[in-house]
Amino acid sequence: MGQYNLDRIFKPQHIAVVGASEKAGTIGNALMQNLIDGGFSGKLSPVNPKHKTIHGYDTFKSVSLLQTKLDLAIIATPINTVIDIVSECVEKKVGGAIIISAGGKEIGEKGKEIEEKIQQIAYAGGLRIVGPNCMGIIRPGAKLNASFASEMPTAGNLAFVSQSGAICTAILDMALKDNIGFSHFVSTGSMLDVDFGDMIDYIGNDPSAKSILLYIESLTNFRKFMSAARSVSRVKPIIVLKSGRSPAGAKAAASHTGAMAGEDSVYDAAFKRAGIVRVDTIEELFDCAELMSKQPRPRGPRLAIVTNGGGPGVMATDTLAKYGQVPVPLDPEIIQALDLFLPPFWSRNNPIDILGDASPERFAQTIEICFNSKNIDGVLVILAPQALTAPISVAQTLVSTMKGRPYPLFTCWMGGKTIAPAVELLNEAGIPTYDTPERAVRAFLYMVEYSKNLETLLEIPPKLTRQIMVNQDKAGRLITNAAAGEFMPESDSKEMLTAYGLPVIRTEIAKTEADASNIGKEMGLR
Amino acid sequence: MGQYNLDRIFKPQHIAVVGASEKAGTIGNALMQNLIDGGFSGKLSPVNPKHKTIHGYDTFKSVSLLQTKLDLAIIATPINTVIDIVSECVEKKVGGAIIISAGGKEIGEKGKEIEEKIQQIAYAGGLRIVGPNCMGIIRPGAKLNASFASEMPTAGNLAFVSQSGAICTAILDMALKDNIGFSHFVSTGSMLDVDFGDMIDYIGNDPSAKSILLYIESLTNFRKFMSAARSVSRVKPIIVLKSGRSPAGAKAAASHTGAMAGEDSVYDAAFKRAGIVRVDTIEELFDCAELMSKQPRPRGPRLAIVTNGGGPGVMATDTLAKYGQVPVPLDPEIIQALDLFLPPFWSRNNPIDILGDASPERFAQTIEICFNSKNIDGVLVILAPQALTAPISVAQTLVSTMKGRPYPLFTCWMGGKTIAPAVELLNEAGIPTYDTPERAVRAFLYMVEYSKNLETLLEIPPKLTRQIMVNQDKAGRLITNAAAGEFMPESDSKEMLTAYGLPVIRTEIAKTEADASNIGKEMGLR
Repeated sequence: MGQYNLDRIFKPQHIAVVGASEKAGTIGNALMQNLIDGGFSGKLSPVNPKHKTIHGYDTFKSVSLLQTKLDLAIIATPINTVIDIVSECVEKKVGGAIIISAGGKEIGEKGKEIEEKIQQIAYAGGLRIVGPNCMGIIRPGAKLNASFASEMPTAGNLAFVSQSGAICTAILDMALKDNIGFSHFVSTGSMLDVDFGDMIDYIGNDPSAKSILLYIESLTNFRKFMSAARSVSRVKPIIVLKSGRSPAGAKAAASHTGAMAGEDSVYDAAFKRAGIVRVDTIEELFDCAELMSKQPRPRGPRLAIVTNGGGPGVMATDTLAKYGQVPVPLDPEIIQALDLFLPPFWSRNNPIDILGDASPERFAQTIEICFNSKNIDGVLVILAPQALTAPISVAQTLVSTMKGRPYPLFTCWMGGKTIAPAVELLNEAGIPTYDTPERAVRAFLYMVEYSKNLETLLEIPPKLTRQIMVNQDKAGRLITNAAAGEFMPESDSKEMLTAYGLPVIRTEIAKTEADASNIGKEMGLR
Repeated sequence: MGQYNLDRIFKPQHIAVVGASEKAGTIGNALMQNLIDGGFSGKLSPVNPKHKTIHGYDTFKSVSLLQTKLDLAIIATPINTVIDIVSECVEKKVGGAIIISAGGKEIGEKGKEIEEKIQQIAYAGGLRIVGPNCMGIIRPGAKLNASFASEMPTAGNLAFVSQSGAICTAILDMALKDNIGFSHFVSTGSMLDVDFGDMIDYIGNDPSAKSILLYIESLTNFRKFMSAARSVSRVKPIIVLKSGRSPAGAKAAASHTGAMAGEDSVYDAAFKRAGIVRVDTIEELFDCAELMSKQPRPRGPRLAIVTNGGGPGVMATDTLAKYGQVPVPLDPEIIQALDLFLPPFWSRNNPIDILGDASPERFAQTIEICFNSKNIDGVLVILAPQALTAPISVAQTLVSTMKGRPYPLFTCWMGGKTIAPAVELLNEAGIPTYDTPERAVRAFLYMVEYSKNLETLLEIPPKLTRQIMVNQDKAGRLITNAAAGEFMPESDSKEMLTAYGLPVIRTEIAKTEADASNIGKEMGLR
């Protein structure tokens, strides 16, 4: 159903909580409390046959008894009651429902049947569904906490969409500690209706989100996903943590020419084609989200490393090398310009080691020269808190140098206690900062990858220009044959390609020497 | 000079600070202040020709004027004065000197000459040298802070030895924040005398250190290093972060059969041979140090993953797969035993997903069953703070379950704000805990690698059993020839192997067809 009615879920005027409660420790209570504490400004209607008021709000015996138009029903009753509730929602022309209740397909056949019934009713009635078996949705900027999460994160420009409830809660808890802000926080659960494709499209059109982070375990509607991702990733970065890389998921199918590519490499290729950056860990997900939401895209991978210590510079170089890159060699003019004010024993090379006694001014002057070079695409500043180092002053100088200047600059203040206030300063000023040179360089290279993916995206023709003639009968016969045997022989696989209009080398089977000779003559071979 | 006099540096009774000062912002002041604040219990003698007392201590015009036996001189005067001071130290039979002063070989030819002179004098007089161009040494447990670091870390059982001063200060600052304790904290600087081999030997014999962490940029005395590491790594784990992996260091030497192996893979092989675990990042250095110092070694890689969320379990599995491992399949008896108390929809597989509503008791019972299995070598417990989760109670239960039971168990409490007190509890109880499933699994696998390295170590015969006859003249001639040309031809390289007594296939050079035929006949070929 695409974007239909999604606005009524994410921007509701009137919400009903079905299964609302005042009893501590229940989901129904958490949902009410969160909507109230979050500051929801619309109308709120608890639904519960046993109470007249809940948390001071007039309470209704059922959804059908509601008087005013309802946008969103949040359902937290046992799964076997949900079918009827969804029917009532359809009758009442409700926009959407968030089904918190578990007990659907994840528990087996019986749950699957329930989900299918819900799906039929909702689809027929134009009711959108988030879940079931999800944590809900949060939009901190709009003061909407339609979830049973323990707290609301701060408002920010990251959108996070996750299939796993456990990952949702972990990320949320981390975000609360590290003060990471979100525009959208969505737990998709079983994705009976609203899925990743819908969410990418929807969030792609919402200017409050600057980048989209996805935690994916499996994709249901691949075609919709690809089309949404391809169009949105041109506008804002999409970063995916797709788990299940390991072989359990990837069944290698034998063929006489070798094994088929694992399922996971198909995901890899598809993500790349859609302009998506794929990361391996939660840490990387946030590291590169931070960089992408704060910085302009680098033109290329040519990174200058400015450091007050040799060791950290080597570590940054090693990470670049791991991804097939080297620190960009410095132009002679840059070396000349740096020679003018750096002490005689600076590295005269990239990493630019400006030595242990580097003052804030020395940092600033060096960075300024890198900024002005056309052969440098980004600058990483590394600081180790040595005896004569002023971590906070260097951060302050950097902040005022960068003010109003969009440039791919990022930092790594190494350490803990002494550097903590400096890191805070950099964070407040929107300058990305990392714990270790490795994390910083990796995040930069992901950003470069995103730029490269975008270029690839623009190169690919979006539609086929001529029609393909497909011989479906032939293809069907070949597949039936192959299904009967163990695998498809080479000759048949070539026939298969021909059936789809792809040119192949002519291939015939010869069973005797005479056969071969005849076929050869026929083909005009000597 | 091996271990000679090292005890007088690391356990001094009487320390002189040459270049001591009371002036804020000077190294000489920082050194004095650190020794005093650190609580050094021995005799302290400032040396400075311009003052009678410094920080209240009787001050001497030179080392030669000291009355009592001196163990350690810490020298922080300009490098050109150091030669004379070292001479005085030798005359006074001082045990060792820590030379803080920079300006040695790192600044070029002139500095190199100064270092060579210092080395000659010290070596002849039996004076051990740490540095020059170093930060000093710290032994928190012995209340010795002979460094100009800003603060002393807490006492603990990790020994850290670093060649880079910048890395030293960064690690120290991090340790202060995260409350990581050290037995030894050593900045080796230019390693004019005391090097990694010496330090491994020395710390290996000190029971206060349980594991040894090294940050290496280059090794000076490879043979000494290998011999020390091979013997010490049998007793305590040695974990190395060797930077400079990238090609800059590895010069590929051409030969007509291909390129020589890069320098870095030689390090890889050597570390493995010495039983050392090599890591890639500072993060990994500490992650696996924590596990190794807190836990017994696992018997093998068979890991059980107990989790209250599917997503994190998949992420742990993916990391195992990345290193070529899978979660160990569960024995039927274990599945039976778990069926008795777990809810019907648990995963019935490893990762053992005990579901989102898992109580502390459910965690404890599951772990207990894993403990008792002979087919499980370690247990990773993952907790995501979901609506019905009690992160702190689960941690408490785990702490009491583990009390007095040495077993490779480690944890990952995912999140931030809610889980912080639980993580503190686990840390206090000595149960290793990590931010993400990936970091936890990686640390475990490093520990498995260490065990495997140890086995390899014990398999290798330490000495050759028969004498080798070496034809040195022949080898010398071949090398002279090769040095004159561009590379050593195949025939000569085989001769070379023969010169060292290694059997090779007989190889002759034929320049014409007739030659080849004759040689063939001679060899008995048809």
